[in-house]
Amino acid sequence: MTTVDLSRFDNAWYRPGATLKRTLWVLVNAWVLKSDLPYPSLLKAALLRVFGARVGRGVVIKPNVNVKYPWFLTVGDFAWIGEGVWIDNLAPVSIGAHVCISQGAYLLTGNHDYTAPYFDLMIAPIEIGDGAWVGAKSIVLPGTRLESHVVVAAGSVIGGKTEPYGIYRGCPAQWVRRRVIRPAADALPETAP
Amino acid sequence: MTTVDLSRFDNAWYRPGATLKRTLWVLVNAWVLKSDLPYPSLLKAALLRVFGARVGRGVVIKPNVNVKYPWFLTVGDFAWIGEGVWIDNLAPVSIGAHVCISQGAYLLTGNHDYTAPYFDLMIAPIEIGDGAWVGAKSIVLPGTRLESHVVVAAGSVIGGKTEPYGIYRGCPAQWVRRRVIRPAADALPETAP
Amino acid sequence: MTTVDLSRFDNAWYRPGATLKRTLWVLVNAWVLKSDLPYPSLLKAALLRVFGARVGRGVVIKPNVNVKYPWFLTVGDFAWIGEGVWIDNLAPVSIGAHVCISQGAYLLTGNHDYTAPYFDLMIAPIEIGDGAWVGAKSIVLPGTRLESHVVVAAGSVIGGKTEPYGIYRGCPAQWVRRRVIRPAADALPETAP
Repeated sequence: MTTVDLSRFDNAWYRPGATLKRTLWVLVNAWVLKSDLPYPSLLKAALLRVFGARVGRGVVIKPNVNVKYPWFLTVGDFAWIGEGVWIDNLAPVSIGAHVCISQGAYLLTGNHDYTAPYFDLMIAPIEIGDGAWVGAKSIVLPGTRLESHVVVAAGSVIGGKTEPYGIYRGCPAQWVRRRVIRPAADALPETAP
Repeated sequence: MTTVDLSRFDNAWYRPGATLKRTLWVLVNAWVLKSDLPYPSLLKAALLRVFGARVGRGVVIKPNVNVKYPWFLTVGDFAWIGEGVWIDNLAPVSIGAHVCISQGAYLLTGNHDYTAPYFDLMIAPIEIGDGAWVGAKSIVLPGTRLESHVVVAAGSVIGGKTEPYGIYRGCPAQWVRRRVIRPAADALPETAP
Repeated sequence: MTTVDLSRFDNAWYRPGATLKRTLWVLVNAWVLKSDLPYPSLLKAALLRVFGARVGRGVVIKPNVNVKYPWFLTVGDFAWIGEGVWIDNLAPVSIGAHVCISQGAYLLTGNHDYTAPYFDLMIAPIEIGDGAWVGAKSIVLPGTRLESHVVVAAGSVIGGKTEPYGIYRGCPAQWVRRRVIRPAADALPETAP
């Protein structure tokens, strides 16, 4: 029976960024992003941008957020990142506009090839479409694409493909129903006469 | 297809407390309640009471506990709040007497109307009956009432209605069996002659 | 109906270590192990050993790791302990060689007898066999033995008995398939002529 040998694990091919940049980010992340104090979202967005993130306008970032590599992060306009969210982006994570990532959610991009003798690192991006909602304490697995306006219920574990406006729940998450959004009270009719 | 617009999100109706009070609590919560150092339960209970919580006697509060708004919190006599518990009480949370909230559990009271174009905030209280046990790393959803002596197994996600003395497990949690408690060795018989 | 009475909870029989030792460990754990700063694994392994842990060579320990009692901890050669892992070892936890405990995983050894009127503490050890992989944000329940090269998928809750090289997923986790590891490219054939 073949066994795994972590002493020969080799991720030298994975070069996520210059050492100095990563070291500085560890400090900013620990002292500002992960702080329990309510630093302004504008400050945190500005720091993320300094380190290479693309962050839209009107983004809300709550306390105790953990971002691995900001230069692999894109956040659209008016998106929200809740308290205690962990964006573990060894690979690119793209969060659309008007997305809500609720408190305690975890976005996972790293994996290992468990069929490989040295447990090779594998990474895969996450894309979250406009208007989606990742519920509190839920987990998004590597390589997942949450389509436009998907809802992931609190505490769920989601991976693979999704359908636009699908509501998913469970561990692993299953499609449960379709999300229907009411027109705004002041909206123009969709089909004008 | 209607889309969600978080730029028009409006929770002005939600007034959880005066700004000064909330700001002071953020500091006390970050420096004392959420500390990894083992400050005495009596100190933490006293601080919660100063900020409006109703906390019974004999309450045990472990390190790294996160309470959103103490003025929305009631804790009964001899209840335990474990390490890393997060009481995210945008709405009232009532914890009965002799309740154990185990380590890492999360009590969620906030929600959003995902059918609304501006993703309206919704809140709902949590009530936990006497003698209940919320297992480690489990999640209690908004509006849940855990009846007397309910058990929620570790890592479960529970919502909705429960039966007294019911044992629940899974994501979402299902009833698995009834909890039967042995009489104490020194107890008087329940039906005296 | 019998009720539970936590005011009479009695765990005096449980003597996990001298008060001074436990107090010092709380400080080292809070300031070094649980720090978000990337202290060297060698330093953290050395501190664990000073407090009685048996830690092999080549062990990797990421930031923000929480260990309850190091004197109840054994970690084999070339094992990895990921960011945010919580080893809540009221009872012995043994982690084999070449094991990966991924980020955010939780190892739980404490339990309560919910049929007892005073909610007696129960503890049970965890053993993790060589080459196993405990996925990110998964939960290992008290008394679990993960056999050699078991894989627990991210976000799962696992307990009870397992089969060697079994892959488990879900809440509660179920066996899903067998793990097959390819021979290393430079490996000698298993059966030489």
